[in-house]
Amino acid sequence: MTARRYAALPDPFPMWRGGVLHGGRLAFETWGTLNAARDNAVLLFTGLSASAHAASSPADPSDGWWQGMVGPGLAIDSDLYFIICVNSLGSCFGSSGAASIDPATGKTYRLSFPDLSVEDIARAGYESARTLGIERLDTIMGPSLGGMVVLAFAALFPGAARRLLCISGTAAAAPFTIALRSIQREAILNDPNWAGGNYSAERPPSAGQALARKLGTVTYRSAAEWQQRFGRDPIRDDMRRDTPFAPEFAVQGYLESLAQRFVSAFDANCYLYLSRAMDRFELTRHGEPVELMRRARLEQALVIGVQSDLLFSISEQQAIAQMLEKAGVPTRFASLSCIEGHDAFLVDIAAFGGEIGGFLARR
Amino acid sequence: MTARRYAALPDPFPMWRGGVLHGGRLAFETWGTLNAARDNAVLLFTGLSASAHAASSPADPSDGWWQGMVGPGLAIDSDLYFIICVNSLGSCFGSSGAASIDPATGKTYRLSFPDLSVEDIARAGYESARTLGIERLDTIMGPSLGGMVVLAFAALFPGAARRLLCISGTAAAAPFTIALRSIQREAILNDPNWAGGNYSAERPPSAGQALARKLGTVTYRSAAEWQQRFGRDPIRDDMRRDTPFAPEFAVQGYLESLAQRFVSAFDANCYLYLSRAMDRFELTRHGEPVELMRRARLEQALVIGVQSDLLFSISEQQAIAQMLEKAGVPTRFASLSCIEGHDAFLVDIAAFGGEIGGFLARR
Repeated sequence: MTARRYAALPDPFPMWRGGVLHGGRLAFETWGTLNAARDNAVLLFTGLSASAHAASSPADPSDGWWQGMVGPGLAIDSDLYFIICVNSLGSCFGSSGAASIDPATGKTYRLSFPDLSVEDIARAGYESARTLGIERLDTIMGPSLGGMVVLAFAALFPGAARRLLCISGTAAAAPFTIALRSIQREAILNDPNWAGGNYSAERPPSAGQALARKLGTVTYRSAAEWQQRFGRDPIRDDMRRDTPFAPEFAVQGYLESLAQRFVSAFDANCYLYLSRAMDRFELTRHGEPVELMRRARLEQALVIGVQSDLLFSISEQQAIAQMLEKAGVPTRFASLSCIEGHDAFLVDIAAFGGEIGGFLARR
Repeated sequence: MTARRYAALPDPFPMWRGGVLHGGRLAFETWGTLNAARDNAVLLFTGLSASAHAASSPADPSDGWWQGMVGPGLAIDSDLYFIICVNSLGSCFGSSGAASIDPATGKTYRLSFPDLSVEDIARAGYESARTLGIERLDTIMGPSLGGMVVLAFAALFPGAARRLLCISGTAAAAPFTIALRSIQREAILNDPNWAGGNYSAERPPSAGQALARKLGTVTYRSAAEWQQRFGRDPIRDDMRRDTPFAPEFAVQGYLESLAQRFVSAFDANCYLYLSRAMDRFELTRHGEPVELMRRARLEQALVIGVQSDLLFSISEQQAIAQMLEKAGVPTRFASLSCIEGHDAFLVDIAAFGGEIGGFLARR
């Protein structure tokens, strides 16, 4: 069962750094009903690796990546809102990307997919909402990469959203995060199976991609959380291996499990494109940030950050909130003390749900 | 020119996790003169990747890894002290390790080198000092891995040191650091050139080792420092490459330069041994920590930590200081606000020199 639908992108679809996409499409799912005034839509962008399946629905009862947050009576309330979650352009869960078929050749794009930017992800979401007959969104929102996308969206499409909700995003990738992401990409590029992007379905660059994901996971959580969860517990017996320098600790087993799940689900080339797009994002390329946010004609904003976030620091969240305030947008800045780091939005549904629900209920 | 000398280890030399070493030796350098009472010796252990060449000397005028800290009139004053810096057992700068020759076979040990522990590094340093006729050290000290070694030393050899100086160490590796180090090791294990440890001198696992070092470097510094140093500056033109997903930012060029320097100097197998030894260290294996430190008969201690240290958190430094205090050792805890993270001891010679010099001058 799937609740996945597709929006056809304008053809040609111009890409921010050059090139165009022909026959592009975006995968999305929806919850709730668009009202007659067409003014109750929430557009939700995701983090790097999520699909459009944010939560269960009658058409797909399986749990989504934000289960407990999106649905009837929940913080993002489908009784009140028409919620659209899009799979990012460049991702591999139904949207056009390096792993999809180039209609011009009938073959997988691979590295012939045009350069991808955060701006393209924003534009593709914007165009998808238009295909649903929505001219102005009630709220654009997103965590992590999605938080970068909503800032790009506000800069690119003034007046297209009434409210903005940014979670653990940034207005410009910091060199520390560029370093960490570029190491993750290098792990894939180094894997002989990557083969310049031309890997077969049978032999993907799994080892490199698993390594990349492990490092990603480390940056998404926090040292304090792991001290609580794992301490120095040994690895489970069934995960022991008889190879040199094999894993010994529970935390290594945890990383391995998550990495294998990711490798089996996510395309390596898509990962490379999306990861680099994050490095390159810099809101100031579009103009002076406060002026950009003023022109966006936002009526309200909520910025949520997590104090234990290693990757998108709490000071960056505060800077986003200040930028919006200076632009005259009534803004609430929520600095959460969750222990789970960057990933807290996926884990601490209570804390995030309280903030998000409170914001959306003020409609 | 070299100032390097060698200490023969007792034969057999028992290893902490089993096995023995035959014909083992430790490389070391010294500064200053041992006094007639033989009670002015400082034994300095290093971080993961350093050699015994801490500073220049008449015999080797080249800069050392702690240049400006060790020498006549400096914080670790060779006019007052006889300073011995040892290359860790298991390392590759003259001491016995995976890259040295097994006298039993005449061949490089590689993975036949016995399991290495922090305790072995401590014991080898202790035995080296004894070969120099020193029964009791004035001070044992070390940063990072060296900070773990001095705690092991105090537990293993009660009364063998009068004072302890621990910089950015830990009494037990935290799961966050285990995760980060195990990813670094995996980058090497994944490199086809590693070949189960049997790489040739011509084809070492450079790509994996470079990746490992880049990640190490990220964890040794801080996000705030890199924001200041690099911001979003582009990579130098001469470091640009025409390959897919090539580096674009200055911070990537910086990581590449450091990684190449490391790869050309350090043996991959030795790195694996030392890195794993750090994961495994847990002072409580020797007994109740406060009781251990009481039995060590230390007269004074200095514990230095850096607030921006991602890897060996300031709370771990505080815990070490509290353990020593509880054991009745007069202890100063210096919590430094340097921006350079874990590596600050290598960079902020003024701040560290002030603390270390002040401590040592109280002789």
